[in-house]
Amino acid sequence: MPIDPDAKYEITGFKWVPDFARGFVRETRARWAFEEVGLSYKVRLIDFDEVKSQAQRHFQPFGQVPTYSDGDVEIFESGAIAIRIAEQRLGLMPLDMAGRAHAIQWVIAALNSVEPFVAQLSVVDLFEADKPWSAERRPSVVETIRSRLHDLSEALGDKQWLDGNFSVGDLIMVSVLRELHASGLLKEFPNLAAYVARGEARPAYQRAMADHLATFQDAGPTPPLSVSQPIGVPA
Amino acid sequence: MPIDPDAKYEITGFKWVPDFARGFVRETRARWAFEEVGLSYKVRLIDFDEVKSQAQRHFQPFGQVPTYSDGDVEIFESGAIAIRIAEQRLGLMPLDMAGRAHAIQWVIAALNSVEPFVAQLSVVDLFEADKPWSAERRPSVVETIRSRLHDLSEALGDKQWLDGNFSVGDLIMVSVLRELHASGLLKEFPNLAAYVARGEARPAYQRAMADHLATFQDAGPTPPLSVSQPIGVPA
Repeated sequence: MPIDPDAKYEITGFKWVPDFARGFVRETRARWAFEEVGLSYKVRLIDFDEVKSQAQRHFQPFGQVPTYSDGDVEIFESGAIAIRIAEQRLGLMPLDMAGRAHAIQWVIAALNSVEPFVAQLSVVDLFEADKPWSAERRPSVVETIRSRLHDLSEALGDKQWLDGNFSVGDLIMVSVLRELHASGLLKEFPNLAAYVARGEARPAYQRAMADHLATFQDAGPTPPLSVSQPIGVPA
Repeated sequence: MPIDPDAKYEITGFKWVPDFARGFVRETRARWAFEEVGLSYKVRLIDFDEVKSQAQRHFQPFGQVPTYSDGDVEIFESGAIAIRIAEQRLGLMPLDMAGRAHAIQWVIAALNSVEPFVAQLSVVDLFEADKPWSAERRPSVVETIRSRLHDLSEALGDKQWLDGNFSVGDLIMVSVLRELHASGLLKEFPNLAAYVARGEARPAYQRAMADHLATFQDAGPTPPLSVSQPIGVPA
C-alpha cells in the first residue's frame, strides 16, 4: 500500500471539498504519480483556513494544494511535483534526454496550452454561472476548447500515449482532459476519449482516486463554509 | 554574438506579427534563455500559413511558435524549451536537486498559476474586445489577476529573485508579468514592478529583445492578412 504514515514523501490535500470538486483536486495528480512509480507517501489533510494561512503560504503562495516535501525538496504546483516524483524512480520518465524533454514538454503543454482553456468552462459553468455574461460567452469558450482538442487529437493520432510509453506528460494531460467529462466535448474526439479512458483504467490511477475519494467518505456533502472559488480546483 | 547561422540550436519565430504582439511573441523567451547561458542559436522565421501547415504541426500541434531543435531533441512549449536550454549550460538552473526543483516549480507556477489569468486580460481587451460581454467581464478578470499578483508579491517579498540566483523560473515569470505593463496593474505591487524591471535590465534580455524586434524592422505595420487571434501570443 503506497499510503504509509511513516513515508518520507508528504503531500497536502483538503479535508473537505464540495461534491463537484471531488475527484478533481490537484493532489490526485501527485497521488497518481506516487502509485505509478511505487513510492509510499502520506497526505497531510488541511482545511481552507489553513491553506490560506501565512504558515502555509510560505510553501504555497497561492493558497492551494498540493504541496510536496521529501526531506530534501519542498515544492508546490502539481506539474512540478509530478516531474519531481518522476525523477525519483523509473516509471514516468524515460532515461534518455530526448524522452525526458518530451515528457516535460507534454506536462507543460497540458498545463499551459490545454488547461487554461478547459478551466474557462468551469469559470462559465460554475464560478461565474450567475454572471450575466456567462451564457453569452459560453459558445466561444467551447469553440476554443474544441480547437485545442482537435489539435491534440491530431497529435495523438492512433498512438496509445503521446510519446512512446506512458509518461508524466500523459499523467498530467489525462488529468486535465478528464475535467471535460461532464461537458461531453471529449466524445467528439474518440481517440482522446479512449486515451483518457486508458489513463483512468490504469491500476495506479484507480488506487489514487479511491484513496482520494475515501478522504471525503465521512465528510458529508453539506458545505461547512461558503466558497466562491474552491482552492486547488482549476479555475 | 549568440545568433549564428551555423548554430546547432534552432528555434522558430514569426516573419511578421501585428504591432501589439511585437516584443511578446514567445520565441523571445527562448532567445533570452540562450543569451543567459551564452549559447549560439539561429532562428527560422516562418509565416502564419507555414506554422499552421501539416509539416509544422508535426512538431507543434497547436500551430504556434517557438519550436526548438538541437540535433538530439526537438520540442515545443516555451517553458519546456527554456528548461531544456537551462540544462545545457550553467546560468539558469542551480546544480543541486532542490534548487533545480524550485526553478522548475517557478516555471510551472508562471505558466499555470499566473499566465492563464493574465492572458484573460488580452482576451477581454484584444481578442474579444468587440464582444458584448467583455466590458462587463473585465472587472472580474482584473480582480483575479490582482489577487494572483498580491500572492506573488508576498512570495517575492524583498528578494531580488524568486529563489536565490536568477533562474529559468524568473525568466519565465518576468516574461509573463511583463504582459501586464500596459494594464498598469504591476505598478500596484512595487516589488513586482521592480522585479520585472530587474529582469528587463539584464543584458541577455536586452540583446534577445533587440534581435527579436529587428526581425520586424522592414516588415511594416500593415497586416498582410487578417488574424483573429495571433498565433504564439498568449491567449
